[in-house]
Amino acid sequence: MTQALVLEKKLDLSLRDIDIEETLGPRDVRIVLKTVGVCGSDVHYYTHGAIGPFVVREPMILGHEASGVVIETGRDVTKLKEGDRVCMEPGIPDPTSKASRLGLYNLDPAVRFWATPPVHGILRPTVVHPADFTFKLPDNVSFEAAAMVEPLAVGVHGTVKARVTPGDTAVVIGAGPIGLVTLLAAFAAGCARVIISDVDDSKLAIADKLAKVPGAVVPVNVKSQNLTEVVARETDGWGADVVFECSGSEKAAAEIFDLACPGGVAVMIGIPLVPFLHDVSLGCVKEVRIEHVFRYAHVFPRCIAMLASGTIDVAPLITETFPFDKSVEAFEFAARQPEGTVKVQIAMPA
Amino acid sequence: MTQALVLEKKLDLSLRDIDIEETLGPRDVRIVLKTVGVCGSDVHYYTHGAIGPFVVREPMILGHEASGVVIETGRDVTKLKEGDRVCMEPGIPDPTSKASRLGLYNLDPAVRFWATPPVHGILRPTVVHPADFTFKLPDNVSFEAAAMVEPLAVGVHGTVKARVTPGDTAVVIGAGPIGLVTLLAAFAAGCARVIISDVDDSKLAIADKLAKVPGAVVPVNVKSQNLTEVVARETDGWGADVVFECSGSEKAAAEIFDLACPGGVAVMIGIPLVPFLHDVSLGCVKEVRIEHVFRYAHVFPRCIAMLASGTIDVAPLITETFPFDKSVEAFEFAARQPEGTVKVQIAMPA
Amino acid sequence: MTQALVLEKKLDLSLRDIDIEETLGPRDVRIVLKTVGVCGSDVHYYTHGAIGPFVVREPMILGHEASGVVIETGRDVTKLKEGDRVCMEPGIPDPTSKASRLGLYNLDPAVRFWATPPVHGILRPTVVHPADFTFKLPDNVSFEAAAMVEPLAVGVHGTVKARVTPGDTAVVIGAGPIGLVTLLAAFAAGCARVIISDVDDSKLAIADKLAKVPGAVVPVNVKSQNLTEVVARETDGWGADVVFECSGSEKAAAEIFDLACPGGVAVMIGIPLVPFLHDVSLGCVKEVRIEHVFRYAHVFPRCIAMLASGTIDVAPLITETFPFDKSVEAFEFAARQPEGTVKVQIAMPA
Amino acid sequence: MTQALVLEKKLDLSLRDIDIEETLGPRDVRIVLKTVGVCGSDVHYYTHGAIGPFVVREPMILGHEASGVVIETGRDVTKLKEGDRVCMEPGIPDPTSKASRLGLYNLDPAVRFWATPPVHGILRPTVVHPADFTFKLPDNVSFEAAAMVEPLAVGVHGTVKARVTPGDTAVVIGAGPIGLVTLLAAFAAGCARVIISDVDDSKLAIADKLAKVPGAVVPVNVKSQNLTEVVARETDGWGADVVFECSGSEKAAAEIFDLACPGGVAVMIGIPLVPFLHDVSLGCVKEVRIEHVFRYAHVFPRCIAMLASGTIDVAPLITETFPFDKSVEAFEFAARQPEGTVKVQIAMPA
Repeated sequence: MTQALVLEKKLDLSLRDIDIEETLGPRDVRIVLKTVGVCGSDVHYYTHGAIGPFVVREPMILGHEASGVVIETGRDVTKLKEGDRVCMEPGIPDPTSKASRLGLYNLDPAVRFWATPPVHGILRPTVVHPADFTFKLPDNVSFEAAAMVEPLAVGVHGTVKARVTPGDTAVVIGAGPIGLVTLLAAFAAGCARVIISDVDDSKLAIADKLAKVPGAVVPVNVKSQNLTEVVARETDGWGADVVFECSGSEKAAAEIFDLACPGGVAVMIGIPLVPFLHDVSLGCVKEVRIEHVFRYAHVFPRCIAMLASGTIDVAPLITETFPFDKSVEAFEFAARQPEGTVKVQIAMPA
Repeated sequence: MTQALVLEKKLDLSLRDIDIEETLGPRDVRIVLKTVGVCGSDVHYYTHGAIGPFVVREPMILGHEASGVVIETGRDVTKLKEGDRVCMEPGIPDPTSKASRLGLYNLDPAVRFWATPPVHGILRPTVVHPADFTFKLPDNVSFEAAAMVEPLAVGVHGTVKARVTPGDTAVVIGAGPIGLVTLLAAFAAGCARVIISDVDDSKLAIADKLAKVPGAVVPVNVKSQNLTEVVARETDGWGADVVFECSGSEKAAAEIFDLACPGGVAVMIGIPLVPFLHDVSLGCVKEVRIEHVFRYAHVFPRCIAMLASGTIDVAPLITETFPFDKSVEAFEFAARQPEGTVKVQIAMPA
Repeated sequence: MTQALVLEKKLDLSLRDIDIEETLGPRDVRIVLKTVGVCGSDVHYYTHGAIGPFVVREPMILGHEASGVVIETGRDVTKLKEGDRVCMEPGIPDPTSKASRLGLYNLDPAVRFWATPPVHGILRPTVVHPADFTFKLPDNVSFEAAAMVEPLAVGVHGTVKARVTPGDTAVVIGAGPIGLVTLLAAFAAGCARVIISDVDDSKLAIADKLAKVPGAVVPVNVKSQNLTEVVARETDGWGADVVFECSGSEKAAAEIFDLACPGGVAVMIGIPLVPFLHDVSLGCVKEVRIEHVFRYAHVFPRCIAMLASGTIDVAPLITETFPFDKSVEAFEFAARQPEGTVKVQIAMPA
Repeated sequence: MTQALVLEKKLDLSLRDIDIEETLGPRDVRIVLKTVGVCGSDVHYYTHGAIGPFVVREPMILGHEASGVVIETGRDVTKLKEGDRVCMEPGIPDPTSKASRLGLYNLDPAVRFWATPPVHGILRPTVVHPADFTFKLPDNVSFEAAAMVEPLAVGVHGTVKARVTPGDTAVVIGAGPIGLVTLLAAFAAGCARVIISDVDDSKLAIADKLAKVPGAVVPVNVKSQNLTEVVARETDGWGADVVFECSGSEKAAAEIFDLACPGGVAVMIGIPLVPFLHDVSLGCVKEVRIEHVFRYAHVFPRCIAMLASGTIDVAPLITETFPFDKSVEAFEFAARQPEGTVKVQIAMPA
């Protein structure tokens, strides 16, 4: 019996038995799930039945932010053993693709990614996964924190692409879950200050609490404040070294050139539904570099190491936890997004 | 007497005496001009009286692509002496500005740039210039070639920002003068193939002749061919390593993500009059990096060295030469832009 | 009257009047000193009368790690005003040198550096300094912390050259003052763990206390432990991402290739008195990159920002403070280096 | 029957039948060999029976620089077909190793490399090889040129690690085969001038002929000239942007810091038998970066593209060709190394 949280079709979720048989390959491990986070994309499949070209046509198990315990190992697995506490990278590339050979496995079009149709997610008791994409947890990293590695990895990958220099001033546009993990990643990468913008004061209040000392986070509610003016004031008119666009707003994206300093960089993490108006003349006078990021590559072990060393603390972002048998309620809650909610997690049955 | 080519106002050019007294500072040199190239921006001031916020309000001497001979040196000048053949970088930054200290002197807002109002250009007998921005020519670099260093520097700076890797496939969008020097710079930087697009077959024919062997340049007339399809075919579906946008067309600019390979880079050199539609989702799935370039920094000596070593040959791009006393005709010719014209130069007297 | 701490000659220090007249240039500020740190190089001039080719031939004021308050500004100074609390970069380059123009001002051979013969240091009431190398302190950065910026800058510059990636494991060889600031800089730059080696348990104990959580610092006494073995064990046999050589021991330096991971980097900060044995074959099989650092460039404002934001806390490293009238005693103490001493500072009279 | 050139043991070569059965895997191709180059390492196995830890204990086929024609393809091979002219990368990594996943497959310790004991080389009629490491040749790249890709790849990889900037001045230490391909790679990557040193005038004469224009190559015989002085003179005292150490002389290696400019880079390609004396103080005052290279990664397709486009011409380096039935003589000739010999190749039958 394999009870799982199945998205039957748009707006139709059920916790029910589903028949999945998974063979353990020589380089695979079998994992019992412990904690699963609810991602905005999971919720979007639930509420819309699709994300862009990815349409849910068959019942699909949701969930891709996960931690667990290894219960079986393939015959060629040497780095993991039964009983190891782990978290898992949800995308499995073809190691022999051109992109993978170049080290850019996240850009391999053949990646199979959990809870992206037609691939099942992991809101179910167990999963078989390649050992190469399964990472052992140190004792001081909890299952809850480990299930935050997946979203955190997006922010950390953004800082790697940005090539943050210690002491940088960053702007993070958007204080949703991805904006907040990007803020944590920016500080971890050496940013001294983060100016963060949103339209929602409750989100900005959460961001503000993530500062080590008062003033290290500068929250800006763009309903009442002009972000470009705040950045100019806070940087003596020079601009921010790094701008992380996490709002997915095409209007906000068009402002990156006003925010960046000469020689600065903008990292596009949020994806607006429509193209933004890119004014090349503004980009040129400052020689702004733009990086686009797609998920992450090579950063799961880095995130785990930073959780273990106290460099990053994700606990303040885990705002609600539901037991697995209340998974449907968890999704309804996440879809409602009550004020102050950042990350909803589901505790799997032992 | 200082006879100069003066733009009195829009569409009103005269070759006439003008009163300019220039004091030689301790770190300056005085140079007699030998060859001056006509740039698209010179022509634009002539035909429109302004470029964006830069409006010609007083009579202004045109010209900023120049070579000459040193005739006097300031007392602290050690690297140059009377009689040295030289070419000059037309922008003079404040060496103590923040941008200059960081090595980004081209981004210093205080730069004074020849033939940009209210600064005079150099279509006149002599000019005083800082020795630090005046570069000695080897014997085998002609004054004509040296006057091409300024536009060439734009292309070379673009390849530096791109961080071309030897063996790259490049796309150059636009086969005007800047597209063509960028093609030369791309080959010099190690690109093995350049796919170049334009709507004008005569320009593409000039580009094609710049290939060392048949096939190294792939000309694409976008009136009849789909550039994205050509790039896909020529790169086995992978995409181009580097895309240089030199057309200044907002429509062309929007295509950069289709042209680039996973992990590739697009360098924005041309400046569209209106913003282009930047589709972040397309940029993300390939993690395309975008670099914006503004003129150039630190590349004049590099360009001269590559002209001297035969790495780059600009002679095929110098299509017309007028004597100084026919300067007005030179501008009229350049404004008409007859088929096959790339660079118009003016030979200065004595 | 200008009382100063003067090194008359080797082992002969006196606190006495000295005649220094300093003219305030248009871009200069005059600063009253508040806190001055004692550097190993100061002590070395005191005990040896020379460092390599730099020989003290005339009486020279010591001290180059300093903070103070602006009391007068030159007529072109706009960023600073009377009363501003500041710290100062002790080296003044020629802004028009080739190295400076490239942004590498620390490599300008013409740099004039405080307390490097024949240039006076700043253990005296006031100094005139270029505003461009004088940095305003936020209210929450003390004069004591600000006088630590100079040594801290060495470590931060090292992490910038290393291009630390968040989550890296670093090795710091040597737990002296520079090793310890490098450890702080490494954590600030995103290193999750720092393995630090020395022969002195008291220094390692100080290092250990700088960990945010137990285990983030791994102290290794190389008298009893094999550093390469510890690194192998702590990194699953892969090696460290970054190795900072801060011991200046030629024996330790030769070990960098054993410590680094494939594709890793070693940053040479300490300078052994004799060359080390560099085994190219070891460097090649891992393609180790080596960076050499010389002081720092562009990092003072970054250090100040990280002190202000709580990213870095230097307080635990300031172990002794002497009043100015006990300066000679401060140097004798620093030369003796009692167990547990890291940084000795001198509090200047108001 | 599979006739092959077999190294029975040190100094004992025979052209004889050998029993090799190779199964074609789904991602493999079977290739008939056309041209095989003789590498210094092949000769060293012949004359010494070993290279460092790699000892020839069983009869081993020599040869790893090769081109050929595909005669059979595995069932999953899509990019190659029967009849394709190809060249092959001789090292086969494990695509799932940590190094490979990071894109550093050349650093994977599990790499199986042709003609490195106990792996057979390819001086034999056919070989089975992974399609991913077999590269199709354009029509205008000959089998002879294609068999030069392997050594050329070393030089090109060196320029990639160096991050050559167009217009750089390079020094190549050592004018043997690897020095000469590095010179070609340096020019291809945009170096304007290459100063090359050796003790053998005949090798320097070959280097000199590779210049596009007189003066672009500066040959320096270090028996009679001081390389550091030549570099200083040719660079106005600044130093070379890039130094490629290809001599494997520990004495030459120690000179890299004298040759490099401030902020310059030295690339270690040759491997001295004993460590060189690395003077950190010299490296620090110029902040020299050192890169170590190990074979190459990702550059075979780049080399082929540059041969096809005329960017690089290796023909002048192929100085002798022997038919396969004279293979033993070819090795004896290569071991004698008569004056003017660069690359010896063997033309395979049919």
